[in-house]
Amino acid sequence: MNKLLYEGKAKKVYQAEKDNQVIIYYKDDATAFNGVKKAKIKNKGALNNKISSILFKKLKEKGIPNHFLKKLDDRSQLCQKVKIIKLEFIVRNIIAGSMAKRLKLKEGTVPDNTIFDICYKKDDLGDPLINDHHAVALNLCTYDELALMYDLTKQINTILQKAFLQEDIILVDFKIEFGKTADGTIILADEISPDTCRLWDKRTKEKLDKDRFRRDLGSIEEAYVEILNRIQ
Amino acid sequence: MNKLLYEGKAKKVYQAEKDNQVIIYYKDDATAFNGVKKAKIKNKGALNNKISSILFKKLKEKGIPNHFLKKLDDRSQLCQKVKIIKLEFIVRNIIAGSMAKRLKLKEGTVPDNTIFDICYKKDDLGDPLINDHHAVALNLCTYDELALMYDLTKQINTILQKAFLQEDIILVDFKIEFGKTADGTIILADEISPDTCRLWDKRTKEKLDKDRFRRDLGSIEEAYVEILNRIQ
Repeated sequence: MNKLLYEGKAKKVYQAEKDNQVIIYYKDDATAFNGVKKAKIKNKGALNNKISSILFKKLKEKGIPNHFLKKLDDRSQLCQKVKIIKLEFIVRNIIAGSMAKRLKLKEGTVPDNTIFDICYKKDDLGDPLINDHHAVALNLCTYDELALMYDLTKQINTILQKAFLQEDIILVDFKIEFGKTADGTIILADEISPDTCRLWDKRTKEKLDKDRFRRDLGSIEEAYVEILNRIQ
Repeated sequence: MNKLLYEGKAKKVYQAEKDNQVIIYYKDDATAFNGVKKAKIKNKGALNNKISSILFKKLKEKGIPNHFLKKLDDRSQLCQKVKIIKLEFIVRNIIAGSMAKRLKLKEGTVPDNTIFDICYKKDDLGDPLINDHHAVALNLCTYDELALMYDLTKQINTILQKAFLQEDIILVDFKIEFGKTADGTIILADEISPDTCRLWDKRTKEKLDKDRFRRDLGSIEEAYVEILNRIQ
């Protein structure tokens, strides 16, 4: 049995055979609003494992260094071991979610610029929005590391936007996380899935992501299946 | 009688004789926590008018373009007319106030870097912390204008920190605002006073600013008088 290194809300991380590798297991558990709303969504783990594997493979092909090595089975991936940097990088191509709420903007507003947010990954603070100076003051990273992560985030947005649009899906916004390998290299980690992206059908604007769970819209599994079917 | 152009929480702005000038009148009203706590502080208007006049004059001498033209009387200044940019620029040399609260950091923590925040000046949102991308998306300014304002803010911090320290006062943090003149030039506006700065006595760390009002520490007028006496 592999040693459990970490259990998060949606995933478990086990030590792999090699020291510098981990096995990431995708659970069916869904949480929202900083863990206040909880449920199990049938097959979510398997769907997100598939979707995230496809997207990380595509990103690696396009030159984005990331932790993904290979899909092991329905719910597990072999990944490089990293130390997660306690920052969420959020890209907003269309205004929705917390930004619409905080600034009382209409969901669906298309800004002239691409919006990048960083949030401090800390459950007891509710993952607050911070800025670059706060991240450095909190010793989460250096200004140079921030610049590198913003640059990667921008490239990832371009690649994903294009990939989704080819399948008639609008990438509204998404959240990514980076980690550091043993030698200090910063690479993309965590997952990219309907749990971490807002994805709207291009034609109908139907939500095909975790907002179906947050807002009790039903047909959650069907939406995730739809995303998988389109991108695979 | 001059026409009242605008009344804020602590100041009134009147049209001056010349089209491109205004008279700013400093009131004794004090508010905190987005207007929830209110009081009148005896002589605050006169004290802040004096303190802000001294500091804006000093900043102008050091090359920081600003709206201050001259002190007219005990409570009034003649200033260039500007359209205020709806952003608060906050500099934190020491962590205190809202940042300490949001991120559960100990007040008095000295970060390795200087921290710059921007907040969206909008009462019904509670002046939320935003970032550069939000400011641009909200059409408050351009990225180039932000760069200019951050550069001025940094210079202002250096000048004020030094000036206060000469009088044994630690400039913990402060808030400034910028405005645009009719020809689009961005200049420092609003006020700089114990209402808008955190100022601690270097030796005793006694608070000599509006935190005495926010936290019911008493001797508010005396603290403002102390600041005026030291810097004049």
